[in-house]
Amino acid sequence: MNKEGLLIVVSGFSGAGKGTVMKRLIEKYQSYALSISATTRAPREGEVNGREYFFKTVEEFKEMIARDELIEYAQYVNNFYGTPKHYVEEQLKAGRNVILEIEIQGALKIKEKFPDAVLMFIVPPSAKVLKERLIGRGTESLDVVHARLKRAVEEAEGVEAYDYVVVNDDLETCVEDINEIILSEQKKVAKNLTLINNIRDELKCFSKGE
Amino acid sequence: MNKEGLLIVVSGFSGAGKGTVMKRLIEKYQSYALSISATTRAPREGEVNGREYFFKTVEEFKEMIARDELIEYAQYVNNFYGTPKHYVEEQLKAGRNVILEIEIQGALKIKEKFPDAVLMFIVPPSAKVLKERLIGRGTESLDVVHARLKRAVEEAEGVEAYDYVVVNDDLETCVEDINEIILSEQKKVAKNLTLINNIRDELKCFSKGE
Repeated sequence: MNKEGLLIVVSGFSGAGKGTVMKRLIEKYQSYALSISATTRAPREGEVNGREYFFKTVEEFKEMIARDELIEYAQYVNNFYGTPKHYVEEQLKAGRNVILEIEIQGALKIKEKFPDAVLMFIVPPSAKVLKERLIGRGTESLDVVHARLKRAVEEAEGVEAYDYVVVNDDLETCVEDINEIILSEQKKVAKNLTLINNIRDELKCFSKGE
Repeated sequence: MNKEGLLIVVSGFSGAGKGTVMKRLIEKYQSYALSISATTRAPREGEVNGREYFFKTVEEFKEMIARDELIEYAQYVNNFYGTPKHYVEEQLKAGRNVILEIEIQGALKIKEKFPDAVLMFIVPPSAKVLKERLIGRGTESLDVVHARLKRAVEEAEGVEAYDYVVVNDDLETCVEDINEIILSEQKKVAKNLTLINNIRDELKCFSKGE
């Protein structure tokens, strides 16, 4: 396939399991590539620079903005998050679907710049499950959990701007759902105009008895 | 699931294999129902009234129009074709996805009346394959084949109004592709507002510490 890949934006509540889902998706299918964001937030335990994030100082981040090296960036709980441009463009041209795991502010900017981008919002099966997952992680204080829940309410306000809602109840099902959505998106008429025009032109010849 | 079904319009060139694909789809999945059109054209050999079509006289067809019993109707090569309303509404309410196998004129009317309808255009892998299939059927004279090819050129002019293009190369693959498109359509945000609003409301309670 020589087709350009799709830009996929994945958002969802903290605790909806986005990270695990994306990891499994790119492990299972070669056709996906995960964009690594730049951030000014401190690394969590086990996080590696260049794997989970490119960890930057605020100064470094501002330089990237100044040099127009980010597709989008947004501020979230006092930290900057942004999508480096070079990797995304390279992968799309190679025919890979590039996943941006970003917050809603960034997602809306992407949709504005790239109207063909597919925006997915990952939700837990219920708010109760989400709360349990957030507490279950055990790495955050109850205050942080409550702050996240509050933030989640705000995030959910923007969900209508997304294209699809994917429920993450079972990991493998969720991964398959996402892949099927992308395969279906690739069958949109606008993505197949070359195929259609070729058939149309050939038909014209045939119907003239050529 | 208590969700209302989706209205699916399937069009495509004569010889693209629509009939076979639809037959296999409803055989394989209980979630689909095929709408039976009314028509004034003469039955072909083996066609049964109430199975392939409801065969009507022109007078009967005009009465159906007068009584508002058709969702849409169109004229194609001197014959009328229309979609009886009652069956479609009944199946949609029961949560089934109803397939209308209709021509482009009817498809565009459906999209106007039902903006949520999913319009699919089935194409052969190439125009050459289409021509071979039309000749290979052997039931029509070469003149008819040429007339169909000419009609196909006209039909292809409207394909941009459709949502998806599905290639019918291998039957099972084509059936799976259609099913995946429908499953993905059911994940559209607009189809999941109840789920989203429920989570949102629960989150609001939790974040207040309730």
